[in-house]
Amino acid sequence: MSSKQIIQVINPNTSLAMTETIGAAARAVAAENTEIIAVCPAQGVPSIEGHFDEAIAAIGVLEQIKAGREQGVSGHVIACFGDPGLLAARELAQGPVVGIAEAAMHMATLVATRFSIVTTLPRTLIIARHLLQQYGFEHHCAALHAIDLPVLALEDGSGKAQEKVRQRCIQSIREDGCGAIVLGCGGMADLAQELTRELGVPVIDGVTAAVKMVESLLALGLSTSKHGDLDYPIRKKLSGQFERLN
Amino acid sequence: MSSKQIIQVINPNTSLAMTETIGAAARAVAAENTEIIAVCPAQGVPSIEGHFDEAIAAIGVLEQIKAGREQGVSGHVIACFGDPGLLAARELAQGPVVGIAEAAMHMATLVATRFSIVTTLPRTLIIARHLLQQYGFEHHCAALHAIDLPVLALEDGSGKAQEKVRQRCIQSIREDGCGAIVLGCGGMADLAQELTRELGVPVIDGVTAAVKMVESLLALGLSTSKHGDLDYPIRKKLSGQFERLN
Amino acid sequence: MSSKQIIQVINPNTSLAMTETIGAAARAVAAENTEIIAVCPAQGVPSIEGHFDEAIAAIGVLEQIKAGREQGVSGHVIACFGDPGLLAARELAQGPVVGIAEAAMHMATLVATRFSIVTTLPRTLIIARHLLQQYGFEHHCAALHAIDLPVLALEDGSGKAQEKVRQRCIQSIREDGCGAIVLGCGGMADLAQELTRELGVPVIDGVTAAVKMVESLLALGLSTSKHGDLDYPIRKKLSGQFERLN
Amino acid sequence: MSSKQIIQVINPNTSLAMTETIGAAARAVAAENTEIIAVCPAQGVPSIEGHFDEAIAAIGVLEQIKAGREQGVSGHVIACFGDPGLLAARELAQGPVVGIAEAAMHMATLVATRFSIVTTLPRTLIIARHLLQQYGFEHHCAALHAIDLPVLALEDGSGKAQEKVRQRCIQSIREDGCGAIVLGCGGMADLAQELTRELGVPVIDGVTAAVKMVESLLALGLSTSKHGDLDYPIRKKLSGQFERLN
Amino acid sequence: MSSKQIIQVINPNTSLAMTETIGAAARAVAAENTEIIAVCPAQGVPSIEGHFDEAIAAIGVLEQIKAGREQGVSGHVIACFGDPGLLAARELAQGPVVGIAEAAMHMATLVATRFSIVTTLPRTLIIARHLLQQYGFEHHCAALHAIDLPVLALEDGSGKAQEKVRQRCIQSIREDGCGAIVLGCGGMADLAQELTRELGVPVIDGVTAAVKMVESLLALGLSTSKHGDLDYPIRKKLSGQFERLN
Amino acid sequence: MSSKQIIQVINPNTSLAMTETIGAAARAVAAENTEIIAVCPAQGVPSIEGHFDEAIAAIGVLEQIKAGREQGVSGHVIACFGDPGLLAARELAQGPVVGIAEAAMHMATLVATRFSIVTTLPRTLIIARHLLQQYGFEHHCAALHAIDLPVLALEDGSGKAQEKVRQRCIQSIREDGCGAIVLGCGGMADLAQELTRELGVPVIDGVTAAVKMVESLLALGLSTSKHGDLDYPIRKKLSGQFERLN
Repeated sequence: MSSKQIIQVINPNTSLAMTETIGAAARAVAAENTEIIAVCPAQGVPSIEGHFDEAIAAIGVLEQIKAGREQGVSGHVIACFGDPGLLAARELAQGPVVGIAEAAMHMATLVATRFSIVTTLPRTLIIARHLLQQYGFEHHCAALHAIDLPVLALEDGSGKAQEKVRQRCIQSIREDGCGAIVLGCGGMADLAQELTRELGVPVIDGVTAAVKMVESLLALGLSTSKHGDLDYPIRKKLSGQFERLN
Repeated sequence: MSSKQIIQVINPNTSLAMTETIGAAARAVAAENTEIIAVCPAQGVPSIEGHFDEAIAAIGVLEQIKAGREQGVSGHVIACFGDPGLLAARELAQGPVVGIAEAAMHMATLVATRFSIVTTLPRTLIIARHLLQQYGFEHHCAALHAIDLPVLALEDGSGKAQEKVRQRCIQSIREDGCGAIVLGCGGMADLAQELTRELGVPVIDGVTAAVKMVESLLALGLSTSKHGDLDYPIRKKLSGQFERLN
Repeated sequence: MSSKQIIQVINPNTSLAMTETIGAAARAVAAENTEIIAVCPAQGVPSIEGHFDEAIAAIGVLEQIKAGREQGVSGHVIACFGDPGLLAARELAQGPVVGIAEAAMHMATLVATRFSIVTTLPRTLIIARHLLQQYGFEHHCAALHAIDLPVLALEDGSGKAQEKVRQRCIQSIREDGCGAIVLGCGGMADLAQELTRELGVPVIDGVTAAVKMVESLLALGLSTSKHGDLDYPIRKKLSGQFERLN
Repeated sequence: MSSKQIIQVINPNTSLAMTETIGAAARAVAAENTEIIAVCPAQGVPSIEGHFDEAIAAIGVLEQIKAGREQGVSGHVIACFGDPGLLAARELAQGPVVGIAEAAMHMATLVATRFSIVTTLPRTLIIARHLLQQYGFEHHCAALHAIDLPVLALEDGSGKAQEKVRQRCIQSIREDGCGAIVLGCGGMADLAQELTRELGVPVIDGVTAAVKMVESLLALGLSTSKHGDLDYPIRKKLSGQFERLN
Repeated sequence: MSSKQIIQVINPNTSLAMTETIGAAARAVAAENTEIIAVCPAQGVPSIEGHFDEAIAAIGVLEQIKAGREQGVSGHVIACFGDPGLLAARELAQGPVVGIAEAAMHMATLVATRFSIVTTLPRTLIIARHLLQQYGFEHHCAALHAIDLPVLALEDGSGKAQEKVRQRCIQSIREDGCGAIVLGCGGMADLAQELTRELGVPVIDGVTAAVKMVESLLALGLSTSKHGDLDYPIRKKLSGQFERLN
Repeated sequence: MSSKQIIQVINPNTSLAMTETIGAAARAVAAENTEIIAVCPAQGVPSIEGHFDEAIAAIGVLEQIKAGREQGVSGHVIACFGDPGLLAARELAQGPVVGIAEAAMHMATLVATRFSIVTTLPRTLIIARHLLQQYGFEHHCAALHAIDLPVLALEDGSGKAQEKVRQRCIQSIREDGCGAIVLGCGGMADLAQELTRELGVPVIDGVTAAVKMVESLLALGLSTSKHGDLDYPIRKKLSGQFERLN
């Protein structure tokens, strides 16, 4: 267990500032023998706020998974709350891959009977809804809320978005009948611990949760099953811009 | 209603033969005032048999949607049974977008209480399962079957894959308690009508079903809602290989 | 595809005015080669606002299906939002049968991630709820609303009911997080296109949607499966008032 | 509690022999103060084996409900396993109305974690499936089986159908992982007690179960809610053959 | 049916006053040939307001089931709205065992399409939610409400809790779209009949409902299935405080 | 993160041999700074094979939680596959509490699209079924299997039970369409790693999974929410054998 291991934390958008935030949050919880490499695609979208953005981001995720695998990283985190490209990434990866939305939701069900989600733009709520359904956590979600600010407002230095998140968490705890809050954006990774302390309820960030889940899988000797649905992609000639993924 | 309209049928893989098959099937059912343009991405995967392939194909779909929109097509069909990139395409498109999996499943529920799905490789079954859950048709599906041949076996000219599909349909009708069959691959588009006649039960292909659904939406004056979740992507600078999607 | 075909649009209540409205709406979207015959039962209920009314209406629907089949119509629409007698009608019919509730709901899922329903009396909401569950669209429905006026208020010429529908649609779009509206009554068939234009979101009427779906099934060579659950009724001697259905 | 009360047991088909069987079974379990009146429609279908038959039977049920209410009966049982016309009957009735499918399923969940259903023709299985979904008992049903004999085979005096039911029950107990059997036809009402004794597991008939449930509701002073969804039908002029229901 | 039978009504908490209330309510609806024995554990919790309380109460329930069985009672009622220890009690018992939550919910679905629940403390709502899911009644529940007073407030003689229940019922009927109310606490057993009369909608108490359900099962010759999941506990040496349960 | 922490692993049955097995498995994966204390109740059942056994075991779990909390342990694992007393334990505990069934299921969904469960006696399958439903993982479970040997057969030294588990895993991988196996008994904790290696698919034990999940929660600063449903039990005087829990 104390052998060195690398976890690659992939920010699926191209924002370096957010990659920084995410990397720092990941490092803050990583085990001593875990090295965190925080990366983002060279090409893609600066922020992810819809299905179109997600489709583009998924390619960046796959390119990073491939690069990470070639570098010999032990496991991967997809650090965007929609978990873009998750099942594709699992096919491509040798090690475990965990998305931050699933990680946060799993953790939330362990500490509360029902949780609420606080995210950025209203149009991203449908992505969270679909994930709740796909992961099986619909009954564990009390409510979903959007602060109605874009993702990058979290990086503008004003703290305004952070304050709206905080207010929305406080209101949710009072009104939703939930016992925990899931933060619905990788860019909120640095808020969780402080809000947990201030509000006295678990406020859960997926980036840190996912790092611990990958570490757990590694410690258990568990990796993505290569039997059946998530087996390596069938080799076929990828053309053009996708040659990189061959 | 008799004004000219163009429906763009997008084969998300790069197989020209399959694009041909799909285009021909689409044309065979199109209304007189509908022109079918069958296209496929210039770059991508030659066949789609997993989540990784789907992620790549989604980009090709989006590029075609953009091109189609610029050409002024009235609506779009995504002609791969996993409906890759469907919600992203709906964001990007002005007109209606219909996937062949959803189209076939919708049609099946109109003519039978329960249907079975016959597809290609076993590893693609999970994609169909997830779509059934997402679209709400789990209770309408009696069983899922794979013939255990790759997608492109449908294009090898031997007819072997076609015969396996036929056998599997016959067995399903006998054993599953289903009243209809949904063919789970765009490459099977040319089989549906003949199997329907031979077997005496509805055997449903999604390509033709989707063409009629797009025509229906157009006739009804309905298009993808731009209010809320499926609004146009928020404009942001796409970099590198994705500049084309700007 | 250009051969003549007749679609029988059955208004399950006995209101001639509503049959007129429904027939006109159907004709407005029918293909050139489609002739619409709008009928209603000679005997039955003047409007359908509960399960009791539906049970009576179902008999009228079956009598019309039988008459239509004898006349050689190609397909049938059941033009009441509860889809009364739908599965019974499918057993009896040779051609396809589509209900307007299912048609509208199917169409709505193709243009929006979630839709709201606007109907007449509050007591009919439970019928819509049960259909959502049976058809698999519970997760696609954001909210259900009733304007609290009886069905026939739509035919009183005052326009008051129509205005309440319009107001309720506007409010739904603002508050429900939905991307489309489904109109929950056959008598609202003439409102859809205008509301779609005015409100800028898809407002969907089931009558017109169902006509296009029947046309689609016909063009695809698909009809109600006679294998298993929806096979013709087992011949047995019907007595008394039901002899007509023998 | 010891005041006289009449429970009307409605066989929705026109078979007098089956009405007899059902009435006898009902009387065998009725409380001392309960008088059972077993009736069937004068006009309708001799047996109910599909949705078409059910639609016709529903009218007969409603006519009997009306007659029963006028006679002052305290409650009603609908004695066909599809519970035809149940919600319509509840609207029309003043007293409680219980269907035999729901009654048997409710009872089964009280004595076993999962039950299997044994019914007559395969095409009626879909009706049972839909009821399981509507009533909420899908997870409580281990399997559904049909003996593949028509309903009236139970009345032919040969005992052959009864023996097939018995064999199917024995096999279900061995293979399904169920703890109880629900008999899926009113005509099996006389088999339940003997099979329960012979097989040593609860074999549940809905007719007797429904009688006890109506008695229970009466003893509790509970009747069909007239607030909202199940309020009396809105008065409107019923025409023709339906005048009787005015 | 007129042979004497004893139904043991187990109040799982140690409140003698509540045991009294519950026993009286049970006796008020019991059949003439039914003797009610109302008992509560000698040791345990004075009221049940959470999962911890329930776990303790379950042991008391089991001890009473064992004692009841040794006394030869015919059936058992578990008179706490969380149905604590229900499946364990079914394993241990020879006769039928019915919980008051399930009994009330079952009855409610027979008289209304949707019901609301009114209970005591907000933290017990999650228990009701879980039961709705486990029993299959989620779709039948319109809303859940807590009056925010502890269970024993119902026994303080002031009538304040009773008045809050009444107010909450009135509000629910007006706002929830429900047709019936389920009272969510054994201590409310004496309120149901009066509220039913006053409010004109079915207000259902589980204690009385469960007594009638046990009587029904007894009259039908049905008891807990000893085939499979609910067979008697496998004999093994219980140690210490649990020796009593050997 | 490197500060010392104690995780209490509670075997809910009284088997010392099994407590040993469980403790050893836990220690084998624990982080360097984690001390494992493996305990079992002094009084209770020697093995847990039904709901009755679970109810008794829950008390032992609670007593150990209380003891652990007094000793200052950081978190708790409930090491029986039914997760007996889980929500009660969460109320009582200050730190996080994780059950081995939930832990194994959560982990399985991270490495495979669908998993199968292999457990001991058939009658325990219903417990796993209920947990799948409660936790939201029904759609992720391909099949459930029992080797039909009692729990303590795993401790008889013959290796026969272990071989049956192995055979059942091999067959599941071949037939179920699953990508991973969840071992359904704490006594199988020592088999997972070897089977994972031999079979080449993830074979997941809950004991080790739960230890890593508790460690993860601790590292994230997350503990059981004390807001709402899982707040500490309301203080009330526990009598008799339960005084210990005061």
